[in-house]
Amino acid sequence: MTDLPTRVEIREEGPREGFQIEPGPIPTARKIALVDALSATGLHHIQVCSFVSPKIVPGWADAEQVAAGFDPKPGVTYTALWFNAAGMNRALTFRDRMKVETAVTVVASEAFSLKNLNRDRAKNIEAQHVNVRAHQEAGVPVTRISVQAAFGCNYAGDVPVEAVMQALEDAFAIGAANGLTLPEATLADTMGWATPARIERVVGEVRSRWPDLSLILHLHDTRGLGIANAHAGLRMGIHRFDTTVGGLGGCPFAGQPGAPGNIASEELVLLCQEMGIETGVDLDALVEAGRLAEEVVGHRLPSTLLRSGTLARFRRAA
Amino acid sequence: MTDLPTRVEIREEGPREGFQIEPGPIPTARKIALVDALSATGLHHIQVCSFVSPKIVPGWADAEQVAAGFDPKPGVTYTALWFNAAGMNRALTFRDRMKVETAVTVVASEAFSLKNLNRDRAKNIEAQHVNVRAHQEAGVPVTRISVQAAFGCNYAGDVPVEAVMQALEDAFAIGAANGLTLPEATLADTMGWATPARIERVVGEVRSRWPDLSLILHLHDTRGLGIANAHAGLRMGIHRFDTTVGGLGGCPFAGQPGAPGNIASEELVLLCQEMGIETGVDLDALVEAGRLAEEVVGHRLPSTLLRSGTLARFRRAA
Repeated sequence: MTDLPTRVEIREEGPREGFQIEPGPIPTARKIALVDALSATGLHHIQVCSFVSPKIVPGWADAEQVAAGFDPKPGVTYTALWFNAAGMNRALTFRDRMKVETAVTVVASEAFSLKNLNRDRAKNIEAQHVNVRAHQEAGVPVTRISVQAAFGCNYAGDVPVEAVMQALEDAFAIGAANGLTLPEATLADTMGWATPARIERVVGEVRSRWPDLSLILHLHDTRGLGIANAHAGLRMGIHRFDTTVGGLGGCPFAGQPGAPGNIASEELVLLCQEMGIETGVDLDALVEAGRLAEEVVGHRLPSTLLRSGTLARFRRAA
Repeated sequence: MTDLPTRVEIREEGPREGFQIEPGPIPTARKIALVDALSATGLHHIQVCSFVSPKIVPGWADAEQVAAGFDPKPGVTYTALWFNAAGMNRALTFRDRMKVETAVTVVASEAFSLKNLNRDRAKNIEAQHVNVRAHQEAGVPVTRISVQAAFGCNYAGDVPVEAVMQALEDAFAIGAANGLTLPEATLADTMGWATPARIERVVGEVRSRWPDLSLILHLHDTRGLGIANAHAGLRMGIHRFDTTVGGLGGCPFAGQPGAPGNIASEELVLLCQEMGIETGVDLDALVEAGRLAEEVVGHRLPSTLLRSGTLARFRRAA
């Protein structure tokens, strides 16, 4: 009846997502402390910073210092985010400490493309060609597609599955024109529109068309359905999820001030553990890292598990 | 593959659950205002107050005033909660405004029975016999079983399915001894231990043994899995859920200060609506009632949908 994975990869994006949205300033040493705490939890994949313009994202003006300052743990893949050749060049400085790879970014909603990327989808496709070539010239692998607004859009409403399919077609065409196969794709619920039924529908249709494409879900818990959506993904055999410790981050989009951001890493780890799915993560240590994240940003984070504690703690005491 | 219901009954318990736990005092008129706002949302079932000792629950010292003060709307069933004949007699005063019925309450965890009811399960069974007879003598229907700690326990850890089955057996025996059939049962995740897999397991086993028993899920969102658990219930055809607007309430049990309480009514309504399941509820009106609830208690409630707004609002604007 279901196609549950035996092992799930939690792709921790708390530092990057969280510090880009906090009003701050947060001391660089505290950002580094959180990355190091996360490294000790058993997470295998941590996105540590964003190489974007400090004018646009002041919270990441110290990206270089964080990238240089954390203590890389063997077996953990560290990544960063950037959107253009300038960001790539900054990331390449840290090639010895980070996996430097990028994605072809496409958008399933024209309205969101205009609002968020400041260009329509056609112009974004042109920009992605340029971006892919810049990365290829620098020897940086481009292996992934990232589809934004794949489940709905605050500016366009419902996003038809056909728009997701078209976005993927566009990305594959960009890849093909540049000799790339693009074996993996992230479907991002950028504005928190997904429901379990929508996950099933979109994942199902994408799989039917591209059965060999490896899918990653990037889910936001904007309306309380985030973990239910992750569960729907697990049931369909999705085994890689972007999450943030404590639910760090938030929704930077209009009309949703104070809305939660990504699903909380520890809540997804709890769900996996209780379903007998391996994550490699020490949940108690991750909850402690979440509490550290709250100290670092100076306010409560959305994760409920930070308030209530793990089941393991109660089992031990029982 | 699934057995989705076409219609779901949202059993709103926000006033009763919420005001019993808030440090307060909250003016009686504000409690009444919330009940009246909820009545206008299309909800069909609202629990308005608790007839318990004001020494134990000071927040419900004004239960009579609230019960007398709200404006009953035709088509809405109003209920209250109580645990003994004294509470029943207080409720009976409002028989013209409320449905006066009670449940046989059993506990699936011995440790929780001792902590919460201050008696072991055997003593609780004796007490339930007394309670059932008192209600029968007063002509009050006893139609439901309530199983507390049905999915896990902060004091005992995991609760085996067999303990849930035994608790139900006990309740049916109490019923049989008093000539009652007890056609419905609430399975309560009192301390937030449920997972989708556990919901499937417990509901599945209870159904196999008592296929005609109508089940209600009372879920807490203590660790972020509440809506995923509700979704698992929906997939099994469960069509009645206890919820609280805004996620009013909280977890009064040791070790979990600040942990969220019941799943938020509006998040479950959203899930149902997006799955094409009727609830009769105007979601925008319910979100407004949730915001009123936040004003009344004077702090933010756990519901994320209150922060982010309904999809309908964005669809209209798109």
